Amino acid sequence: MRLAIYPGTFDPITNGHLDIVERAVQLFDRVTVAVANNSAKMPLFTIAERVDMIRQVTAAFPNVEVDSFTGLLVEYAASRGAQALIRGLRAISDFEYEFQMALVNRKLSNGIATVFLMSHENYTYLNSTIVKEVARFGGEVDSFVSPLVRERLREKFSQHYLKKSE
Amino acid sequence: MRLAIYPGTFDPITNGHLDIVERAVQLFDRVTVAVANNSAKMPLFTIAERVDMIRQVTAAFPNVEVDSFTGLLVEYAASRGAQALIRGLRAISDFEYEFQMALVNRKLSNGIATVFLMSHENYTYLNSTIVKEVARFGGEVDSFVSPLVRERLREKFSQHYLKKSE
Amino acid sequence: MRLAIYPGTFDPITNGHLDIVERAVQLFDRVTVAVANNSAKMPLFTIAERVDMIRQVTAAFPNVEVDSFTGLLVEYAASRGAQALIRGLRAISDFEYEFQMALVNRKLSNGIATVFLMSHENYTYLNSTIVKEVARFGGEVDSFVSPLVRERLREKFSQHYLKKSE
Amino acid sequence: MRLAIYPGTFDPITNGHLDIVERAVQLFDRVTVAVANNSAKMPLFTIAERVDMIRQVTAAFPNVEVDSFTGLLVEYAASRGAQALIRGLRAISDFEYEFQMALVNRKLSNGIATVFLMSHENYTYLNSTIVKEVARFGGEVDSFVSPLVRERLREKFSQHYLKKSE
Amino acid sequence: MRLAIYPGTFDPITNGHLDIVERAVQLFDRVTVAVANNSAKMPLFTIAERVDMIRQVTAAFPNVEVDSFTGLLVEYAASRGAQALIRGLRAISDFEYEFQMALVNRKLSNGIATVFLMSHENYTYLNSTIVKEVARFGGEVDSFVSPLVRERLREKFSQHYLKKSE
Amino acid sequence: MRLAIYPGTFDPITNGHLDIVERAVQLFDRVTVAVANNSAKMPLFTIAERVDMIRQVTAAFPNVEVDSFTGLLVEYAASRGAQALIRGLRAISDFEYEFQMALVNRKLSNGIATVFLMSHENYTYLNSTIVKEVARFGGEVDSFVSPLVRERLREKFSQHYLKKSE
Repeated sequence: MRLAIYPGTFDPITNGHLDIVERAVQLFDRVTVAVANNSAKMPLFTIAERVDMIRQVTAAFPNVEVDSFTGLLVEYAASRGAQALIRGLRAISDFEYEFQMALVNRKLSNGIATVFLMSHENYTYLNSTIVKEVARFGGEVDSFVSPLVRERLREKFSQHYLKKSE
Repeated sequence: MRLAIYPGTFDPITNGHLDIVERAVQLFDRVTVAVANNSAKMPLFTIAERVDMIRQVTAAFPNVEVDSFTGLLVEYAASRGAQALIRGLRAISDFEYEFQMALVNRKLSNGIATVFLMSHENYTYLNSTIVKEVARFGGEVDSFVSPLVRERLREKFSQHYLKKSE
Repeated sequence: MRLAIYPGTFDPITNGHLDIVERAVQLFDRVTVAVANNSAKMPLFTIAERVDMIRQVTAAFPNVEVDSFTGLLVEYAASRGAQALIRGLRAISDFEYEFQMALVNRKLSNGIATVFLMSHENYTYLNSTIVKEVARFGGEVDSFVSPLVRERLREKFSQHYLKKSE
Repeated sequence: MRLAIYPGTFDPITNGHLDIVERAVQLFDRVTVAVANNSAKMPLFTIAERVDMIRQVTAAFPNVEVDSFTGLLVEYAASRGAQALIRGLRAISDFEYEFQMALVNRKLSNGIATVFLMSHENYTYLNSTIVKEVARFGGEVDSFVSPLVRERLREKFSQHYLKKSE
Repeated sequence: MRLAIYPGTFDPITNGHLDIVERAVQLFDRVTVAVANNSAKMPLFTIAERVDMIRQVTAAFPNVEVDSFTGLLVEYAASRGAQALIRGLRAISDFEYEFQMALVNRKLSNGIATVFLMSHENYTYLNSTIVKEVARFGGEVDSFVSPLVRERLREKFSQHYLKKSE
Repeated sequence: MRLAIYPGTFDPITNGHLDIVERAVQLFDRVTVAVANNSAKMPLFTIAERVDMIRQVTAAFPNVEVDSFTGLLVEYAASRGAQALIRGLRAISDFEYEFQMALVNRKLSNGIATVFLMSHENYTYLNSTIVKEVARFGGEVDSFVSPLVRERLREKFSQHYLKKSE
């Protein structure tokens, strides 16, 4: 039984993330999508909202579960008994950062390997930030996220503007 | 039972390659190190010599086997029933080429995922070409390859120079 | 009649930007320099100040006009009837971000092409941020911006320090 | 009337190249696809074969013509009265080389601008070399080149192997 | 007598920085480690705390002195009579930024050369930010910083949490 | 007395190389420009021709001498009693290769530091290969090399074509 952790901010989960999940479930017995509680980043969605969205869009995969964690990733992964950390690779800027994190994580916990999976070319330059940027101005995000996430983005930005204009 | 193929030229196998093998055997049930018969590259060692060296330096891993192949990697991998292709990542130039190949392989055979593993930082900039360059001029390659490979490099370059000076 | 939009923050416009404008006016019938109203970035100059500076330093080009916009760039460009978006390329970090934006814009509006023009080598690593950094500490920015912009930077930073020290 | 030259080796022309042509014809009055007679590269197809293939696959565009040239690109472009050189951008390694050539060309002929257009994400990592590599081993190249080019590749590699095995 | 300035934020000094200092002292007669007073970055340690840590961990080098400065680096370097600025290089993202700064500094003061030294491979992806990130969550930073700095990080984060939980 | 070795192929020496020499002579007591006898690269100029050209274009610097070497650079540098190896940095592809060589050299001889100096922005994308490419087709190389080297290139390519057309 091998468990892989797929950590991230997932604010929100995109089709690129889902593509990685689809790859990962074929390689590992169980995959945990783990939302990082990184307070510094000022997310659009709360941890609970993000976990809920991921649960719904990954419902079709029986060996996927969704969780959230605070603190060092390697300690969370060790406490879960994971053999691997999953990271998606898209572009070169990714690579630099991902490589740095992977080296640090290797240093901190040599027993857990970081496994990089390649996003489909259609998601090469897709990330959550750009999805939010497009959604904020009412642009179409259909090819970037699943329908549920699109809906949540719409709600979020209506609330957002309502709050602002009150 | 999951099988991963670790393809490459391995001319010769370095400590960086071995580091990737050590990682891979923990993630997959079986790992095949597959020497690519790429005639264009004019290797220093024959396929048979390379396969032999890899067998000896990976002898300690019960779930590793060594093979060679000609033609398209994805066809070889499919014929072996593999779920994954293993590639080591070191530097950014790697990343570009590896990503390109992974995308092409994904296009040609969507069922087989390319899994990137990160070399230990000590092997960040190590590759077979640089090892041969150092060995050619009699430099010390102890920290780059295993003792067996060092010996074979020494033999190869003595023969090489003998032939040349005859 | 072909119209190209050259969008940006232009906080302030540098000689590198001007170099791109000079190139663009030879390739398109009309060029609109469009200042993005991106409230998140906390600019040094107001939109009006930036539009005014650009107008003055591009006054010599009869087919250039200056505008500002809010919201999605592709929607602004479509509303203007543009055929192309102009982007300057300098260094590799640029490339990543520019490529991502261009792909997203292509997704959102396939009819408008992103056209990348290369800055002169003298402006290879020049950007507005570094100009402001140098100007803030009273350094010479003569080779980075036009005399008018240098003057405005000087005024801005005097005001800035005056305000702070009150 | 503005003329743009789209130079390259085109050995053979891929769907990525065609995507750039489709973009270019919307931006310029006339576009010349110009096959570089670069003897150093040992192409698979002769200049005549490459010109012929490009003519056929670009036949639908009335403002495209196909040509070949020897010597310095900027001199060829000047002799044709071109305002722009078109280059496709895909990945970062591209960028480095393209940027270098563009700077040199700018130095040699300041009057002609290099215009970079972005390939569709589906062709992000596609190039002629990888197409030949796949075709050489009988792999499917349907998603990489047009049917005519696929046929020509098939013929070329049958001849190639026939010659070799004679 | 040649003096080199090694400027940085050093928040805090890591083993990677120390590795560069060890290199620099062999190449120059005197080396000044200069802490930049960059108020924008919201450092964890005060200037005084950083200067003090650097003094203690570089005490073994007789030709090293520690200082801090405000304003433009090139003006500080000129006022000190320095011939060179020392910068450590690790990864590609570094390179971009460092190159940009070096070009700007060359523009502002042609008499002072920027000299890049290469960090040991063990510190390839190490930086102060990642050290603070690991320390914040109580992870082991022994292989990243010297014992003194580890102790100061521990104190800082206890205070930090104490303050927060009051 | 500190000696730095500036190794390279210098086929031929460009203004970018000269720019690095000018920087290096201010930082070290003596600088040796060392032409690598790398038979694999099929140079245009012989070792003797390259050494001669470098001697002439660096004649103005009293503390520069020119030499050639065969074998491992670090062994040559150690035999000369050098403290440093000088390398010029231009673009990112450089960086990768240079970094790799510097790490290997550090491994092979920890006592000799690799010192990277930054080329002037005007030479950002200049290298010997591109100079030869331009000269081969009779293009102007005045802004790339010194008058002497331009003359030698002219002679070389006339001979070359004469030989070919005999």
